[in-house]
Amino acid sequence: MADLELTDLHGSLTDRALNSMNFLNEVSHHYPDAISLAAGRPTEEFFALEDLHRYLDLFAQYLRDQGYDEPAVRRTIFQYGRTKGIIQDLVARNLAVDEDIHVDPEAIVVTVGCQEAMVLTLRALRAGPADVLLAISPTYVGITGAARLVDLPVVPVGEDDDLVAVVKAVRADGLRPRACYVMPDFANPSGLSMDLDGRRRLLEIAAAEDILLIEDNPYGLFPADGHDRRPTLKALDTERRVVYLGSFAKTGLPGARVGYVVADQTVGTTGLLADELSKLKSMLTVNTSPVAQAMIGGKLLANDYSLVAANRREREVYAANLRAITDGLAARFPHGEISWTVPAGGFFVVVTVPFPVDDVLLEKSAHEYGVLWTPMSHFYDGDAPIHALRLSCSAVTLAQIDAALNRLTALIVDQLVPSGGPELDL
Amino acid sequence: MADLELTDLHGSLTDRALNSMNFLNEVSHHYPDAISLAAGRPTEEFFALEDLHRYLDLFAQYLRDQGYDEPAVRRTIFQYGRTKGIIQDLVARNLAVDEDIHVDPEAIVVTVGCQEAMVLTLRALRAGPADVLLAISPTYVGITGAARLVDLPVVPVGEDDDLVAVVKAVRADGLRPRACYVMPDFANPSGLSMDLDGRRRLLEIAAAEDILLIEDNPYGLFPADGHDRRPTLKALDTERRVVYLGSFAKTGLPGARVGYVVADQTVGTTGLLADELSKLKSMLTVNTSPVAQAMIGGKLLANDYSLVAANRREREVYAANLRAITDGLAARFPHGEISWTVPAGGFFVVVTVPFPVDDVLLEKSAHEYGVLWTPMSHFYDGDAPIHALRLSCSAVTLAQIDAALNRLTALIVDQLVPSGGPELDL
Repeated sequence: MADLELTDLHGSLTDRALNSMNFLNEVSHHYPDAISLAAGRPTEEFFALEDLHRYLDLFAQYLRDQGYDEPAVRRTIFQYGRTKGIIQDLVARNLAVDEDIHVDPEAIVVTVGCQEAMVLTLRALRAGPADVLLAISPTYVGITGAARLVDLPVVPVGEDDDLVAVVKAVRADGLRPRACYVMPDFANPSGLSMDLDGRRRLLEIAAAEDILLIEDNPYGLFPADGHDRRPTLKALDTERRVVYLGSFAKTGLPGARVGYVVADQTVGTTGLLADELSKLKSMLTVNTSPVAQAMIGGKLLANDYSLVAANRREREVYAANLRAITDGLAARFPHGEISWTVPAGGFFVVVTVPFPVDDVLLEKSAHEYGVLWTPMSHFYDGDAPIHALRLSCSAVTLAQIDAALNRLTALIVDQLVPSGGPELDL
Repeated sequence: MADLELTDLHGSLTDRALNSMNFLNEVSHHYPDAISLAAGRPTEEFFALEDLHRYLDLFAQYLRDQGYDEPAVRRTIFQYGRTKGIIQDLVARNLAVDEDIHVDPEAIVVTVGCQEAMVLTLRALRAGPADVLLAISPTYVGITGAARLVDLPVVPVGEDDDLVAVVKAVRADGLRPRACYVMPDFANPSGLSMDLDGRRRLLEIAAAEDILLIEDNPYGLFPADGHDRRPTLKALDTERRVVYLGSFAKTGLPGARVGYVVADQTVGTTGLLADELSKLKSMLTVNTSPVAQAMIGGKLLANDYSLVAANRREREVYAANLRAITDGLAARFPHGEISWTVPAGGFFVVVTVPFPVDDVLLEKSAHEYGVLWTPMSHFYDGDAPIHALRLSCSAVTLAQIDAALNRLTALIVDQLVPSGGPELDL
């Protein structure tokens, strides 16, 4: 038999980053009745099959309005298309309307979700074994996984670390920091955002140290109540220092698997980084499903290019849910037994507890308490115990949040109080 | 400005494989009025927007018939889904019906076209710098490009080479041949097929030498008139020796960008190679667009799982076009001035001429003669001049074939006869 050993396969397959995703999925499949404060999926409340038909028709009509005859309309949606995509014009208009980012549509590559945009960017930047990626830690596991696929080491930059010092230390080791990955708005997993000064300083440091910034912005449209949206790094970027990764998974529709990368950096004298990423894409996925692009294109057209407008209801849901989690924790832990972040938006609250939080505790929580969450250890390099867990507010109802927090509280209390000991006053 | 040099980026970006695809696309964009015998795209004759609506509805109804309630139907199509896909059951039934291949749906990973299936397979198999891929030469440029992305060298195996000798020579160089890539049916670009004995012998060699076979089968459903389909390597494979790559681009709908890989090899004691590929996919594209999968699922449901049945009209078109090309060449070159293959099916005819065929000649052909084709040099390693070109029959009408062959004949005649010399009798 032609069977294989794991040691015969690429090293990423035994790496924690790839297996942690798998483990988390398996736990949630294994305990379908547990309430999930783990999933970062968007709310399902407003999904409607009719919308798919409508988006498709709207996009076809848009092509006709652009002067396409019927065979050209059909060809555009059915056939292989240009590797860069068929909706870059619409994406550029969306970026102008919602983000005040103004880029040539030719600097945009439409990708199979933001994940492919990460892989393309890191594949291009990893030229040799001295290259490394810097990433603000804790770090989204998707960028770590993408880096593993292209054999690019990731150097974590702690939230309180001096980025300049890290860059200099990396260089002193003979390594070449190519870029720093950052999610300035309502980051996954930390929930934290950078203030405007921090954004400007980061751009200055990147310029001074001559590294790129890879800005990932899946949650920026979802500020919490009483908070405003802040300008993205890309909107502040006057010298093509930022490669901007966009996702329609949270704001468009996840099942389309459409994202994009804005790569307006020049390469040599004639080309754009977007052209080089497109060449790589031609050998990775050829192009992003035109049928799926038509769905996103139709949704943009249906909302005058504004995903802020398209997501008014979703934003209210997320803001209410986020408040329900932080208020719910405050009501259940009034005496400082544990602490948690109160994010200015997005999907995630990080709870810090006085005991280590690992996969064993997650399994126990799923099995005995019926509640799922994500150990923060999955977002750190190394084996140091991490005393924190991530709660997501996006794919649950208010009633589920209430029940889930009761269950989580029971788990935490049982961990705090040795069994048989006195109960905390809750 | 944060601008880059090509030498700062991954080596694949200066590789011929990635640039040849780009060059060929650019030529065809640059000469939109030239008739294209270059494109390997499927015929556009039967595209109908209504079908997309119908496929989506059929797939939704199928989910209901499986017991899904409405929220679950919507979630399956709209939400992120399982990395392996949502239509493996339907793909497995299609393989049983059309190919007599019988595999557990769990051994199937649905991918973003066949291209992603190639990248996943090669990424998994490339464990270290000694690993190489063997590939029957001339070789589809997509597998070469995929290999470049994962830094896996490709060793060409000439059609007349002894595979065993190549394997032994590679091993003698301290390298590890992981697999041999082969397209046994109506190959791109050669148009050639392996006979049944050749298939059996290849499986025996792979077993004796302990290498995998990567079988790519995009054209197998399209035999020419008077020819039968032959069993795939996977259908003959009794010891999980074959990783089978499937595409719906030619038989389903290209704009869905849905393909798959059958990887039933075990890994270690518990897992399947499909599970490992799925882990890699979770960091490459997360999952294949469920909306796009629903389209392909709907098409399979609409045709009782048979793409042979779904492609009766297309098969007639391709068979007639293929005959028009070979008959048309015979009528225009009755005296053996040039030669060409008469394939048993598929899209491609290879024309051999007594002069080298390069990109300069293609540009001249496009500009001065108004006809596009593909220099066979794009499918070979190295710089040796190649005296052959590839014609594709799939995306043209009979009238276009007639006109294109007239133009091609004029080009060939002008190349054969020094200008000012006597004309050939045509």
